[in-house]
Amino acid sequence: MSIRIGIIGYGNLGKGVEIAVNAAPDMELAAVFTRRDPASLQIRSAGVPVVSVSEIEDWKDKIDVCVICGGSATDLPEQTPKYAAMFHVVDSFDTHARIPEHFANTDAAAAASGHVAVISCGWDPGMFSLARVYANAILPDGKDYTFWGKGVSQGHSDAIRRVPGVKDARQYTIPVESALEAVRSGADPELTTRQKHTRECFVVLEEGADAAAVEKQIKEMPNYFADYDTTVHFISEEELRRDHSTLPHGGIVFRTGCTGADKEHRHIIEYSLKLDSNPEFTTSVLIACARAAYKMAQEGQKGCRTMLDIPPAYLSAQSPEELRAHLL
Amino acid sequence: MSIRIGIIGYGNLGKGVEIAVNAAPDMELAAVFTRRDPASLQIRSAGVPVVSVSEIEDWKDKIDVCVICGGSATDLPEQTPKYAAMFHVVDSFDTHARIPEHFANTDAAAAASGHVAVISCGWDPGMFSLARVYANAILPDGKDYTFWGKGVSQGHSDAIRRVPGVKDARQYTIPVESALEAVRSGADPELTTRQKHTRECFVVLEEGADAAAVEKQIKEMPNYFADYDTTVHFISEEELRRDHSTLPHGGIVFRTGCTGADKEHRHIIEYSLKLDSNPEFTTSVLIACARAAYKMAQEGQKGCRTMLDIPPAYLSAQSPEELRAHLL
Repeated sequence: MSIRIGIIGYGNLGKGVEIAVNAAPDMELAAVFTRRDPASLQIRSAGVPVVSVSEIEDWKDKIDVCVICGGSATDLPEQTPKYAAMFHVVDSFDTHARIPEHFANTDAAAAASGHVAVISCGWDPGMFSLARVYANAILPDGKDYTFWGKGVSQGHSDAIRRVPGVKDARQYTIPVESALEAVRSGADPELTTRQKHTRECFVVLEEGADAAAVEKQIKEMPNYFADYDTTVHFISEEELRRDHSTLPHGGIVFRTGCTGADKEHRHIIEYSLKLDSNPEFTTSVLIACARAAYKMAQEGQKGCRTMLDIPPAYLSAQSPEELRAHLL
Repeated sequence: MSIRIGIIGYGNLGKGVEIAVNAAPDMELAAVFTRRDPASLQIRSAGVPVVSVSEIEDWKDKIDVCVICGGSATDLPEQTPKYAAMFHVVDSFDTHARIPEHFANTDAAAAASGHVAVISCGWDPGMFSLARVYANAILPDGKDYTFWGKGVSQGHSDAIRRVPGVKDARQYTIPVESALEAVRSGADPELTTRQKHTRECFVVLEEGADAAAVEKQIKEMPNYFADYDTTVHFISEEELRRDHSTLPHGGIVFRTGCTGADKEHRHIIEYSLKLDSNPEFTTSVLIACARAAYKMAQEGQKGCRTMLDIPPAYLSAQSPEELRAHLL
């Protein structure tokens, strides 16, 4: 029997989930829920109902796991606890500092209603968290490094778009090659924010805007750019569309540590992702976590979980026997 | 309260476990069991008893988890089921083809006696298995590559030592750089055995041995060398001791896959290990798995497990709250 998936929210993430569910051997898409007028929404999957989110309670018995595809800033803190009271759910909440609070709220709702909720599925938090936790457990005496990029930071692109005179913008976060090499060499470098990443901005100006003023304002923006070596390129709207319309991302998690009676042996663990599409990779992780949520629910588990709590085999469509025979 | 660890077998692996247990914040070494005369064994830890393995049953209530440090060829297939009937155990069984059989034997013994056994802990099988399972679950449409090295293969070194005229030898397995680059480029290459790795041998000859004959016999050895580009260097015993006495290893697991309605987006996952000491890294994984075995046993679980069945957080000495706050 297939796992019946519901999608809540049909933006970039929801569309990615739809594609990933249709590609999964053990899942089917049951419904897409939207805050918009369902009649206005054209989805890819033939025969799958588009339903107003106001009617979602009617679907309680027709869906195994809901994938909540909202944003972390305002949607998910409200949506995930709310829907965890009705369904087994997964989300991609990625505001690291607020995870403990989001976990507690979701756990209360899921535990009370007997559901499983898996939060913060994706690659950071998500796969990068796993890389950090495994590496820290194995090499307790060591140092962590996380680098992001090369990739598009949507938060930084949005920040540039808020600068007066900017019509559109795309910002790339780029790890500094010499910093990567220093970590790989085992030198255990202490790295400042500036030494780890550079920021490259492609900006389309409004008609008549002052380029020098815009560049200055971007480069001096606190938190976002002031602590980095930032490059600003002014390009046309056509160039932005032609050369910068995709959403690649990725990064590297390192842990360097030592073992031995005199700490004489050094070990370097490196986990790297190079992703053509940040949202599609995130949805691929979400779908694997939806599978795990289903299996945990079948066992009678309830409450909130993260990827740190999930046995890896639960993410796979293969049986434990197949995994042991072919991938172990 | 500390987790009380027993070590069965005091070779390279057992010595590594001893160091790792003493470095762990939540563990203590309870005893070392040996097949040799206990009086003949000098261990590093003051005050820890060295006990004949014939008396191990007396320790049933004084040890939480036994780490079995035998070899995969003959020791572990017999030892792990035997000791899983008395203790919670972990081992580093690494004969991939025989894992299903070893799992079944150990599961029967552990389940019947109410113990938890974690088998095949280490880096391959182990961390590399995790990398493969996670990546396959997330990118079902893709290709796997595992490279080993640069590192010392003890099996291949032993095989050379069995060649008549060879006094001692050390063999390095080395991934072919151009193959790594082809995989990283996203080209999805089909790679033969010869295209993936080369083998470099450092050989000390017996007095009067025929170097050309030895070299020919090494290079033509089926399974071990015939399918590889192999280099043989003849060196002195002093050079072998001076330059080749350590046991570095490592490798890289890749998965390349695609997503998107038209499979238009490519993703590359790369997990790499560079290890100064193969046995010490393996023991570090074993110790983390011993911690997980203890936690699973506390929950009342029983039977055989592999790392694929263990929630990542169980490997860590940190609490779930700490992990969510700092590493997620």
